[in-house]
Amino acid sequence: MKYEDFKIISSASAIPKRVVDNDELSTMMDTSDQWITQRTGIKRRHVAVNETTSSLATQAAEKLLDQSDLDAADIDLIIVATMSPDYLTPSVGAMVQGNIGADHAIAFDVDAACSGFVYALKVAGQMMMADHEMHAIVIGAETLSKLIDWHDRSTAVLFGDGAAGVLISNTANQGSFISEDLTTLGKLGKYLTAGQVGVKSPFAADDTQYSPFFKMNGHRVYGFAVKNVPESINRALAKAGMTVNDIDHFVLHQANERIIERIAETLNAPMAKFPVNINEYGNTSAASEPILLAELVDKQIIKRGDVVALSGFGGGLTVGTMIIKY
Amino acid sequence: MKYEDFKIISSASAIPKRVVDNDELSTMMDTSDQWITQRTGIKRRHVAVNETTSSLATQAAEKLLDQSDLDAADIDLIIVATMSPDYLTPSVGAMVQGNIGADHAIAFDVDAACSGFVYALKVAGQMMMADHEMHAIVIGAETLSKLIDWHDRSTAVLFGDGAAGVLISNTANQGSFISEDLTTLGKLGKYLTAGQVGVKSPFAADDTQYSPFFKMNGHRVYGFAVKNVPESINRALAKAGMTVNDIDHFVLHQANERIIERIAETLNAPMAKFPVNINEYGNTSAASEPILLAELVDKQIIKRGDVVALSGFGGGLTVGTMIIKY
Repeated sequence: MKYEDFKIISSASAIPKRVVDNDELSTMMDTSDQWITQRTGIKRRHVAVNETTSSLATQAAEKLLDQSDLDAADIDLIIVATMSPDYLTPSVGAMVQGNIGADHAIAFDVDAACSGFVYALKVAGQMMMADHEMHAIVIGAETLSKLIDWHDRSTAVLFGDGAAGVLISNTANQGSFISEDLTTLGKLGKYLTAGQVGVKSPFAADDTQYSPFFKMNGHRVYGFAVKNVPESINRALAKAGMTVNDIDHFVLHQANERIIERIAETLNAPMAKFPVNINEYGNTSAASEPILLAELVDKQIIKRGDVVALSGFGGGLTVGTMIIKY
Repeated sequence: MKYEDFKIISSASAIPKRVVDNDELSTMMDTSDQWITQRTGIKRRHVAVNETTSSLATQAAEKLLDQSDLDAADIDLIIVATMSPDYLTPSVGAMVQGNIGADHAIAFDVDAACSGFVYALKVAGQMMMADHEMHAIVIGAETLSKLIDWHDRSTAVLFGDGAAGVLISNTANQGSFISEDLTTLGKLGKYLTAGQVGVKSPFAADDTQYSPFFKMNGHRVYGFAVKNVPESINRALAKAGMTVNDIDHFVLHQANERIIERIAETLNAPMAKFPVNINEYGNTSAASEPILLAELVDKQIIKRGDVVALSGFGGGLTVGTMIIKY
C-alpha cells in the first residue's frame, strides 16, 4: 500500500436552502451590496434555519454513499472537520456515524478551523496506510451563523453555513494524493478567534461567559494569508516535483476574493485556474474547499485525471495544502 | 519505517493546585463523602482556578520537552485531545504550538471525548509513518469544571481538571506501539452530551442558548462501558497475538472505580493490574489515561519494557484501546 494509491470516489455537498443576500443584510446593519462585493466578492450566503452542523454533514455523507457503490457498513473511518459542532461531545463525526448507520466506522472531529478539511484529509490518508481495503468519509461542516454577531458588520457579512466532503478509498489503481504541506502559526492565533467556551465554576478566579462571536484582526489575517498560502503551495509543489503550470485547478479556501486574486498574482498563475464561489456561499470555513470541489466535479469542470491543489487557511493560524489527482 | 518502531520518549502531567474534596462538595449540594466514594471511588478532584485547558496543556508540553533531549524546534506534530477547549478557534493544539515556540510543528485538536487520548495517539502514530525522523507531542487536556452544573449532584461529583501527555519519536530502536482497537457507537451518543454550542441567529427557526452542562444517562453509559471496553481490549489483544496475562498494566480511563472493577472481572484479570487514581482526580476525560500513565512512570511502577494496555471510553460514544511497550 502506498500513500499515492488513495482515490477520491465521490464528492458531495449539503447547503442550507435559506439564502441571505447583501441587500437583506443591509436592512439589518449599516452596510451595502457594493461595499461587501468590492471588498470580499461575496453576494449571498446560505444560512441554517433548521439545519445543524451534524444534519448537514449527515446529508453530505448520504450523498457521498449514493454516488458510490458502497454501503454505510463499508465505511471504516469518518472524520469531520469543524469549528462549529453541535456539541463538545458527542463529536459531529460520531453523530454522522450513528445517523447513517456506519457501524464499523470509527469517527471523530478535527479542529483546525478553515484549514480543517485539508488537515482531516491528511489524517484520513495516513490512517488508511494499512494493508487492507479501507473506505473513509472526510467532511468539512459548519454552521458559522451561530458564531456571528449579527450586529457587527465587520464580520457578519463574511461567513456562511454548509457542509461537503469526499469519500476516499485505498483500493483503486489510480492514485489521488500527490503531496501536501501543513503549517501552523500558533503565535498568530489571537488574530482570529471564535467560540470562547467561557469559565463558570464556583472555584474559578474570574468567571467568563460563553462568547461565541468571531473576533478578527482583518489586516493581520489578510497579511498572513497572502504571504503564507503561496509559500505553502510552493512547498507542496516542490515536494511533488511540480510547478504552478502542472496544476489544473487551485481550489482555495473561499475567505475573500481579493485574497485569492493576490495569491494568484504571487504565484504568477492566471485567475482562470482559481475558481471562485464565495459570491454564493461566503466563507464556510472547513466546508469551503469541499463545497467548491463538489461543485466543480458536478459541473464537470474538474475531470478525472485533473491535478488539483486544495489549500485552506485561517484560524490557528493554520495553512494546509494538498495536491491531488482527481 | 514500521509502525512498531515508535517510542514514548517522556510522559508528563500538569494538574491544577486547587483540590476540592467530597466534604467540600457536601457543603454545596446534597451529597456526602460516603455516597460518592461508594459509588465512584472518587475522594477529591483538582479544579481550575486560573488555569485553562491551553495553559495546562502548555505546561505538560514544557515538561515533556524538559524530560527529553529535544527542543521545541524539534517537534513536528502536536495533537491535543480535548472536549473542553478554550475556543472553537484557535485550537488548543495551535495555542500550545505558539506558547512553546514549536514553530515547525503542525498542530490541531481531536475530539473523541474520553477516548480522545487513544484516538489522538493512533492519529499521531499513523501520521509519523514517514521515512524521516519525526517527533510528536500528544496531550489530553480538559477543564471540565466549566461544563459542570455545580448544582447537579448526579454529575458535579464526577469530573475534574488536568492535562497530561507523551512525547513520541519514530527514531528509537525499541518499539512501543503494538496494536490498537478503536470503536465508535454514534447511535448511543445521546446518552452522554456536553457543551451544546447553541444557535443564535436571526434566521434560525428556534434559538437555543449555549448549554455547557454534562447530561448523562448513567445507567446506559455504565452498561456500554462494562460491555464494550473488555470487548475492545480483547480485540486489541487478539491483533497483538497476546492474552490478558501478557499485559503488565491496564491503564484505563478513570470514569468510575466500579466500572474498572467490572472490566477486570470480565477479563478475568486481577485488580492489581488495574491501577486507579480516580480517588485523587475524578474523571478528567481525555486527560485521564495520560495523567495515570505519567504518575505510574514517575513512581517507576511502569518501567521500560513493560506492556501497557491504554483504554479510553465515553462520549460519542467511543472506545479506544492501544497496547504499547513502554
